[in-house]
Amino acid sequence: MSERVTGFRFAGVYGGIKAGGALDLGLVYAERPVIAAAVFTKNRVRAAPVTISERRLKDGLCRAILVNSGNANACTGRQGRRAALALTRAAASALGVSARLVVPASTGVIGVQLPREKMEAAIPSLVSDLSEAGAARFARAIMTTDRGPKMAVARLKVGRQVCRVLGIAKGAGMIHPNLATTLAFVTTDATISRSVLSNTLRQAVDSTFNRATVDGDTSTNDSVYVLASGAVGSRAITKGSLAGRRFASALGEVLESLAKQIVADGEGAEHLVRVEVRGARTDADAVQIARTIASSQLVKTAIFGCDPNWGRILAAAGRSGARFNPDHVSVTIGDVRIFQHGTPVAHAKTEAKAAAVMRRAQYTITTTVGAGRGIGHYWTCDLGHEYVRINADYRS
Amino acid sequence: MSERVTGFRFAGVYGGIKAGGALDLGLVYAERPVIAAAVFTKNRVRAAPVTISERRLKDGLCRAILVNSGNANACTGRQGRRAALALTRAAASALGVSARLVVPASTGVIGVQLPREKMEAAIPSLVSDLSEAGAARFARAIMTTDRGPKMAVARLKVGRQVCRVLGIAKGAGMIHPNLATTLAFVTTDATISRSVLSNTLRQAVDSTFNRATVDGDTSTNDSVYVLASGAVGSRAITKGSLAGRRFASALGEVLESLAKQIVADGEGAEHLVRVEVRGARTDADAVQIARTIASSQLVKTAIFGCDPNWGRILAAAGRSGARFNPDHVSVTIGDVRIFQHGTPVAHAKTEAKAAAVMRRAQYTITTTVGAGRGIGHYWTCDLGHEYVRINADYRS
Repeated sequence: MSERVTGFRFAGVYGGIKAGGALDLGLVYAERPVIAAAVFTKNRVRAAPVTISERRLKDGLCRAILVNSGNANACTGRQGRRAALALTRAAASALGVSARLVVPASTGVIGVQLPREKMEAAIPSLVSDLSEAGAARFARAIMTTDRGPKMAVARLKVGRQVCRVLGIAKGAGMIHPNLATTLAFVTTDATISRSVLSNTLRQAVDSTFNRATVDGDTSTNDSVYVLASGAVGSRAITKGSLAGRRFASALGEVLESLAKQIVADGEGAEHLVRVEVRGARTDADAVQIARTIASSQLVKTAIFGCDPNWGRILAAAGRSGARFNPDHVSVTIGDVRIFQHGTPVAHAKTEAKAAAVMRRAQYTITTTVGAGRGIGHYWTCDLGHEYVRINADYRS
Repeated sequence: MSERVTGFRFAGVYGGIKAGGALDLGLVYAERPVIAAAVFTKNRVRAAPVTISERRLKDGLCRAILVNSGNANACTGRQGRRAALALTRAAASALGVSARLVVPASTGVIGVQLPREKMEAAIPSLVSDLSEAGAARFARAIMTTDRGPKMAVARLKVGRQVCRVLGIAKGAGMIHPNLATTLAFVTTDATISRSVLSNTLRQAVDSTFNRATVDGDTSTNDSVYVLASGAVGSRAITKGSLAGRRFASALGEVLESLAKQIVADGEGAEHLVRVEVRGARTDADAVQIARTIASSQLVKTAIFGCDPNWGRILAAAGRSGARFNPDHVSVTIGDVRIFQHGTPVAHAKTEAKAAAVMRRAQYTITTTVGAGRGIGHYWTCDLGHEYVRINADYRS
């Protein structure tokens, strides 16, 4: 998997934030001003970098994204806003571009001021670190409690040209719609208008990141950025065209892969589970049932314990608000039917077989509610001791 | 605290359900038919005893409640319904009363058939165990993962008579509105009509059990029953009268105490926390913000870690859906102001002081949002290793 996209360079250095000197400052740089779209957290409490990014991306053009980990720059008031502005100015100046085309992104602890001077001092080395092959270092620099960097690549043909879509994300906790990530950065060398890029991004986020949950929380910093350089010189992708569908599919594939990597890395998670719901009255009902099952602490601890406790699945479905008749419900874990038409499948072996499926790193729980043709899914993970350990004392 | 209420007797024995011979079968018996009201789970998936109780209590009269722990008799289909009916018939026959005046309640594992024969065989000993002083044994017989029995008593004056309200509850997991309990049984010797009793119960549940969360789940079995014997011979309590207000207050006090005992016993919980919200646009907004903070996994793990991570409190408030300006928010833990007007109170000592408050068994987190005069609260507890341990493998 190549991690290069024509027209972009990436960097990752130590910027004085994290203890121990781990990479904590990253940069995405476009060789020319590029088309940009983004979606941001729906949380009413938004970090300084989110509000600045949203304002600066209104025109749909961007040149660089300056990202730090280890500090969210959220709930930091005027001082935090000033720090974010000063740091993007410093980066713009070192890059020789307009500050209005540089946007900030931050992730980490909330309510602590950035070590602005140290970070400014690191910017020259950050800019020197830029390279076409720098995506892996950038991916490491944006990590917080992540166990590893998260990247995904897809290709698509536009006319005779092959275009690339590269996604890089971080996120392991505070994962839930909307959005389901902390930060994601997608670059592509396809040629596409702002409006088509923006619409395609929104749809792709809705069916990927917004269908993933680790802990039901929505962060103050969640952001997904897409930059399109057009540097391979393909013809412009238009709405509804074959190329438009291919681009939507490639972007969806990249975001789906990143969303799954994020849930699989849910703080301490050992199991990545697809919660599939079929036979709901509507697709919206199916997603609502899937969301409630996927977010249930009791289901998530049962997943941790590899316990086929379908009673908790039923109870979650029952309180989802969707209408169905409990006597028509069936539940399957992997390919093992454990509950059918309102009662458990009463075989000692059934339970043992379902438990065996649940020991896998990845599997599907399918709930069929028998109320119609609606389908939907959600990605979730287990809630175990590691999650508690990481989150009980994240800041020390 | 006396656990007797004129006109009622209680019992608790081993009925063949729990491993190890612990008490698992309880009985509340009224010496004459008494006025009864109840509220039941809003979960679409409802256990057999819930549907039977609801039907039998339609007339507002009751003679006995047969309760078992260790098995919820939920998702057990026709066989489960038959077992519940047969068991109440057996109890009615042993008590010499009409089966239509005996209602069942169950709590425990979902989807397993009751050991009906063993339980029927235990009913004679259950009936012989009945005594006016049997409340403590009954309270033990309805426990599942509870660390101890839960009771609360209040007195009220009606004319010259002193009436009693005795509440007995069980619940430690699957605690969240609506309802916030698994099972609660209230008996009173006051004289009151069905409609006044029913209305008073609904209001009291709404401001107590429906303001408590352990894990955000709603069980298939949640039920609160109130039986009024009128056996002290006081005059009838009417709506809006002084006695009516006193009765509402006494019932509220009993349910509030039980709700707090349940949350404090949240599976493995070490801290009982009152999440107080002030200054919201409306009371409904305040309750919504309090509910979101109280239900946040990240807030609950921070409570477990005694970590004054107000950032998670802010993030939860921000995604609650209530409208407010983050720059006007303040957060106080106990009496320590840690966040004011959108930014942290920047003193090293502040954090240490707040952490010291959080080591207490019980304290209050107050969030003032500066958007109006709405107030509301929720009770919650920490999410720690013990919760994971208990729930990862509840059934084995």
